[in-house]
Amino acid sequence: MSNTEKSLILPIDEVLDLATRVLLHAGMAEPHAKAIARVITAGQRDDCQSHGLYRLLVTTHTLRQGKVSGTALPLINDHGPAIVKVDAQFAFSQLAFELGSEVLVKKAREVGIAALAINNCYHFSALWPEVESLAEQGLAALALTPSHAWVAPAGGTRPALGTNPLAFGWPRKGKNPYVFDFATSAAARGDLELHRRADKPIPLGWGVDSAGNATTDASAVVNGGAMLTFGGHKGSALSTMIELMAGPLIGDLTSLDSLALDAGVGGTPCHGELIIALDPAHLGLGDSAADDARAERLFSTITDQGARLPSQRRFEARARSQRDGVAIPRKLYSEVMSLLPAGQ
Amino acid sequence: MSNTEKSLILPIDEVLDLATRVLLHAGMAEPHAKAIARVITAGQRDDCQSHGLYRLLVTTHTLRQGKVSGTALPLINDHGPAIVKVDAQFAFSQLAFELGSEVLVKKAREVGIAALAINNCYHFSALWPEVESLAEQGLAALALTPSHAWVAPAGGTRPALGTNPLAFGWPRKGKNPYVFDFATSAAARGDLELHRRADKPIPLGWGVDSAGNATTDASAVVNGGAMLTFGGHKGSALSTMIELMAGPLIGDLTSLDSLALDAGVGGTPCHGELIIALDPAHLGLGDSAADDARAERLFSTITDQGARLPSQRRFEARARSQRDGVAIPRKLYSEVMSLLPAGQ
Repeated sequence: MSNTEKSLILPIDEVLDLATRVLLHAGMAEPHAKAIARVITAGQRDDCQSHGLYRLLVTTHTLRQGKVSGTALPLINDHGPAIVKVDAQFAFSQLAFELGSEVLVKKAREVGIAALAINNCYHFSALWPEVESLAEQGLAALALTPSHAWVAPAGGTRPALGTNPLAFGWPRKGKNPYVFDFATSAAARGDLELHRRADKPIPLGWGVDSAGNATTDASAVVNGGAMLTFGGHKGSALSTMIELMAGPLIGDLTSLDSLALDAGVGGTPCHGELIIALDPAHLGLGDSAADDARAERLFSTITDQGARLPSQRRFEARARSQRDGVAIPRKLYSEVMSLLPAGQ
Repeated sequence: MSNTEKSLILPIDEVLDLATRVLLHAGMAEPHAKAIARVITAGQRDDCQSHGLYRLLVTTHTLRQGKVSGTALPLINDHGPAIVKVDAQFAFSQLAFELGSEVLVKKAREVGIAALAINNCYHFSALWPEVESLAEQGLAALALTPSHAWVAPAGGTRPALGTNPLAFGWPRKGKNPYVFDFATSAAARGDLELHRRADKPIPLGWGVDSAGNATTDASAVVNGGAMLTFGGHKGSALSTMIELMAGPLIGDLTSLDSLALDAGVGGTPCHGELIIALDPAHLGLGDSAADDARAERLFSTITDQGARLPSQRRFEARARSQRDGVAIPRKLYSEVMSLLPAGQ
């Protein structure tokens, strides 16, 4: 891979360094800047463009608006053998996760299952970096968070639910973990927005208009209509579960609440997140080789018939980035560079 | 409600008594008979015909085959502050759940989150009685179990996954809990079987034939084809998660393993089950009235637009049964009575 007219190649370390410098220059405290830069670099490295360096533009813009704190540090509340709570104090979620997950991992290894509840955080990133980090430490992990109420329940036509992602990670010895991270809405909000901006029709099933009719017009969904969940009443039930578990269960907001709090500004949702970690060493019956073999047989039965595991495309992009460096669109690169003082 | 030509009305207590007597007469140990009768009665009471008295025919048949133990008692392994494991010793799951869940509830109330892992059980019932029982004790609860490998992964055409149900319960003060319980396959195995027996076409999306083509022929799905998951790649990922968490994570079988173990007999799957309970009193921030209000606002936003909550139909049937008694088809009633010695 080499520089082209359209994109520039940077080693992963340089992407991380660039992201960190931009966030520091925007006034972010160093631990926040580093934690967010790590997640943004992981997105760019894995070719998730919408979770890569592009997020520096959004993050620094949000910071300038003054709603999200760039400096408040997470408060850790160690709540007994199986629970750790982190008050993110209305900063971004990444540092809260990093600090909280250290305690979560210790607890899960100690007693077999543990929960990390993050409150009062602004969450803009994917959940896969979180469950993947836990899986790399040998734990199975679930992560869930509400968003803004843009999505109608099955059988309804008006927003009640968020796009509510669910992520899961499973440790595999000597291999990339099994990881999925999906929105429980039929489409991601970002995909809907991209179609709206490009004035491109959306597939039927993504949303309804303000009269509750199926539509291929993204603007009609955004302006008074509603998105739909994936998988009909089952996806809708799952999305409701995420509202409850990452909202009222942990003393935090539902997607209805966070949209009301946003008051039309269109900002990043402010809410909670729940992460559950489980240790196979505790939950199993002592034969981890047999357990691993059963899991691997399942994976090979899936892949041997030509089906893909989730995240496979991402892991392939990662391997390319690690070998060849990260490709960054030149237009994006100059937008990012414009966030730094001239000459840096 | 009164007796008709087609159905007979019994008070709930008499249904429970009848079910218990049938199971005892079939040779089941009393604690098993009582635990299973309670679940079967709940199914009949809630008008879930396929999980009601009909199951007595299946259960007693399975017992006579000698594969499932009617007498082995669950062994409880209290594994520290947050985990309880139950070895069901190849008996049915209900008693293992009842005894294990007493310990699970204590642990969840003590530390905030706890897991119950049941191993070596035969599982034929729905999962809603389990999460509902935990929700009625004030806990949020998840239950998951694999089944037999009948379902192809997204992007594939050959079985790798089970019908893998997922159930969730949420406690509501003074109201029936929020409860869902769904198969991650597009259709339940029982529904597929009903269509096959009635030679009725199935909707597209339920399965593929042995060549991997979409089909409306239930026999083609059962004979060499495969069922499909709900919700495309997302449902497939969720089903895989259930395999891993209620299988290798707890030292037990995947749906591929349990189908292999069954060796073509067509019996009830033998495997594990994972139940996770979470206590809002620990995970919340101390304002349970506000938490409940946010959850209830979500529910009313769903129901006020005419959408239904999962289990609503079931709770309505329950109210009717509690008021008027349980309607039992006469044909089913005589089949059940034939399992008892004449004159009982």
